[in-house]
Amino acid sequence: MKKAIAECLGTFMLVFFGTATAVLGNGMEGIGTTGIALAFGLSIVAAAYSIGTVSGAHLNPAVSVGMWLNKRISTMELVYYVVGQIVGGFLASFSLLAILKTASLDTANLGQNGFGELGAMGALLVEIILTFIFVLVIMTVTSAKKGNARLAGVVIGLTLTMVHLVGIPLTGTSVNPARSLAPAVLAGGTALSEVWVFIVAPIIGGLLAALVSKYLLNTEEQ
Amino acid sequence: MKKAIAECLGTFMLVFFGTATAVLGNGMEGIGTTGIALAFGLSIVAAAYSIGTVSGAHLNPAVSVGMWLNKRISTMELVYYVVGQIVGGFLASFSLLAILKTASLDTANLGQNGFGELGAMGALLVEIILTFIFVLVIMTVTSAKKGNARLAGVVIGLTLTMVHLVGIPLTGTSVNPARSLAPAVLAGGTALSEVWVFIVAPIIGGLLAALVSKYLLNTEEQ
Amino acid sequence: MKKAIAECLGTFMLVFFGTATAVLGNGMEGIGTTGIALAFGLSIVAAAYSIGTVSGAHLNPAVSVGMWLNKRISTMELVYYVVGQIVGGFLASFSLLAILKTASLDTANLGQNGFGELGAMGALLVEIILTFIFVLVIMTVTSAKKGNARLAGVVIGLTLTMVHLVGIPLTGTSVNPARSLAPAVLAGGTALSEVWVFIVAPIIGGLLAALVSKYLLNTEEQ
Amino acid sequence: MKKAIAECLGTFMLVFFGTATAVLGNGMEGIGTTGIALAFGLSIVAAAYSIGTVSGAHLNPAVSVGMWLNKRISTMELVYYVVGQIVGGFLASFSLLAILKTASLDTANLGQNGFGELGAMGALLVEIILTFIFVLVIMTVTSAKKGNARLAGVVIGLTLTMVHLVGIPLTGTSVNPARSLAPAVLAGGTALSEVWVFIVAPIIGGLLAALVSKYLLNTEEQ
Repeated sequence: MKKAIAECLGTFMLVFFGTATAVLGNGMEGIGTTGIALAFGLSIVAAAYSIGTVSGAHLNPAVSVGMWLNKRISTMELVYYVVGQIVGGFLASFSLLAILKTASLDTANLGQNGFGELGAMGALLVEIILTFIFVLVIMTVTSAKKGNARLAGVVIGLTLTMVHLVGIPLTGTSVNPARSLAPAVLAGGTALSEVWVFIVAPIIGGLLAALVSKYLLNTEEQ
Repeated sequence: MKKAIAECLGTFMLVFFGTATAVLGNGMEGIGTTGIALAFGLSIVAAAYSIGTVSGAHLNPAVSVGMWLNKRISTMELVYYVVGQIVGGFLASFSLLAILKTASLDTANLGQNGFGELGAMGALLVEIILTFIFVLVIMTVTSAKKGNARLAGVVIGLTLTMVHLVGIPLTGTSVNPARSLAPAVLAGGTALSEVWVFIVAPIIGGLLAALVSKYLLNTEEQ
Repeated sequence: MKKAIAECLGTFMLVFFGTATAVLGNGMEGIGTTGIALAFGLSIVAAAYSIGTVSGAHLNPAVSVGMWLNKRISTMELVYYVVGQIVGGFLASFSLLAILKTASLDTANLGQNGFGELGAMGALLVEIILTFIFVLVIMTVTSAKKGNARLAGVVIGLTLTMVHLVGIPLTGTSVNPARSLAPAVLAGGTALSEVWVFIVAPIIGGLLAALVSKYLLNTEEQ
Repeated sequence: MKKAIAECLGTFMLVFFGTATAVLGNGMEGIGTTGIALAFGLSIVAAAYSIGTVSGAHLNPAVSVGMWLNKRISTMELVYYVVGQIVGGFLASFSLLAILKTASLDTANLGQNGFGELGAMGALLVEIILTFIFVLVIMTVTSAKKGNARLAGVVIGLTLTMVHLVGIPLTGTSVNPARSLAPAVLAGGTALSEVWVFIVAPIIGGLLAALVSKYLLNTEEQ
């Protein structure tokens, strides 16, 4: 139960700091894509070295299914983790919405993801590739056998920043169903009708990464 | 006494480099929000690995009250720390003011915090949330039981950068009474009348973080 | 064989995230040179702590020839590594091309390198200097005798970011034949006719760095 | 002798990557102050983990005099170090000049420092403060007693980035006589007539930092 609360709090950090920087920095001089990419990445650093000491800071169902496939968490834990992550995402989007309303700002943009110019298949492919790379790094650097426990949070955060530098101009970057669901539900419309890609693609990417890390990179104990 | 001087020097670094970057970079190409957020964050790195070897580099009454609540410092130390931090903040704001005057620049902006579009309640809430996350990371990563002593300064600095990426467009980001007091006093006017929020909110956020880190994240020795 | 696949995957990361950020961010507010330089640098971090656990994450023929000269890999391994790197580069450029086509974007810019205003000799010299510094850092920080294995990926990534901050305005920064070949072949024209510099110069720079690190910095076991 | 060559090579990195980014990025979208500050900071990371394994990577007479005052290097070593640093600075400025000429670019800006709006006294004061903080961090994080040897290069590099975020709008940031001398000599005119401040102030700041780190922070062996 503590793990579910920890994941909820950690995913709150990720979704709140990431989407709020994207929404509030919109049009401000000097945040731009690099600043938004940094905010997402640094939220991993913050979560990893705080609530990560309890739950490992997955913050992302695509990470949790990969961990589950490679038997690092049980099926029961997977359920707890994912529920915690989704709740955390909604708390973050509600907080952002409340801030925007208090400041009398436009609430149409909550940092939701979309297909952009790519179409469904293009977005699906891009998100699978990005999630695959992201989760591959996570599976390795947190591996008991191959990993680097002390530095893992920094490495994963910097990798998420890199993933956003490419993904923001394309889909806004999901690689995480818990990051995409709440903004899509609250924004509705196109975002809601397109959100399935940002659930399906990260999970496919995460499962692929778990397999490649296991069989190519030997990350799991025999 | 050495600890108070160390905190004074460290808070000088935080407030001087943070607010001077905000004020001097105003309108310059390429500092912007990301550069200011970096300056605040990196001042923590600089302070942690220098004066932090003497005092632990709290640099912030909201951190010190959290540490005191979880019995990591005594009440006497709390007083020394907070006085050192406030003096350090004033030295930083005086230095910035002197530089601005020497360069014949406008002295209306000293990096003071304000409610922006949020109003008092909105600013209070935002500052509580931001300080809570910030101090939660600090309490965990500096914990004897759960922490990562060697990397703590880097992690805390990157977290403060993240906090600023969201907070700068809203309140200018305080999360630290010692960072807000001196610019408000020297600038006067609205800043001074609003400064109470940037004293009260960080302290509430810091105390909440101390409780959550103790009971949810088990950061304290039993 | 696993090492060749690992190098292929790692070089895919480097070339895909680097060139895609350069191409997609073109004209977007807030990526700019610093964001592109970060994307290249962080791809090293991501690769080092994932596929680097299998192959060491050279990702670059200029690095591999340096390692080979200082007897850290065999001639057979050199061949495997370089083939893997070149294939990875092509996979990355094909992926970027597919994304651009799906989004109906211009495909003339694939992140290829060029002489810019420098001419062939100028570009050759700049690339030799930049590669020399880059590989010198790599040879030292990965040295069994002088290195820092845990932090190496971060240090090398930050060094590549620095190299790009200077090189982007000049040649677009190669320092890596596998990074330059695929974009040049797919873009054709000037890029293809100039690509020899971005193969020759990095290899010269890499060999020089191997010698200096061996004889000046004593990086190799006696 | 190897140490002098190492310092020469390291100072070349610092001055070349720092000033070349400042000069070449001038007017380019997206380098700006933050990118220049990063280039200077990351050059320390690159130097520390390469030539730093031989000489400790001072790269700066203000650092070397501080080290000498606290008896970490001998008077003879001080001379070797400073000569190596000055030669490295000139090699860097000559390289930048050659690149600018090859590309038919304006050679008036070589990244030289100046008083800006501050006047001599203001520039002197600012440079003393900035160097004092910079060298204080260096003396502590490289201290045998209080330091963090593995992370030192990263910490010092990030500190130099912070120092530049404040200093670029004021003096262009020196904090290092070897960084200022060569551009001033090659550019001549005002830069040359003002360079004395960027020699005197860093040395004062470095000596002060050595004293404070010794007596306040107890960085030296008894």
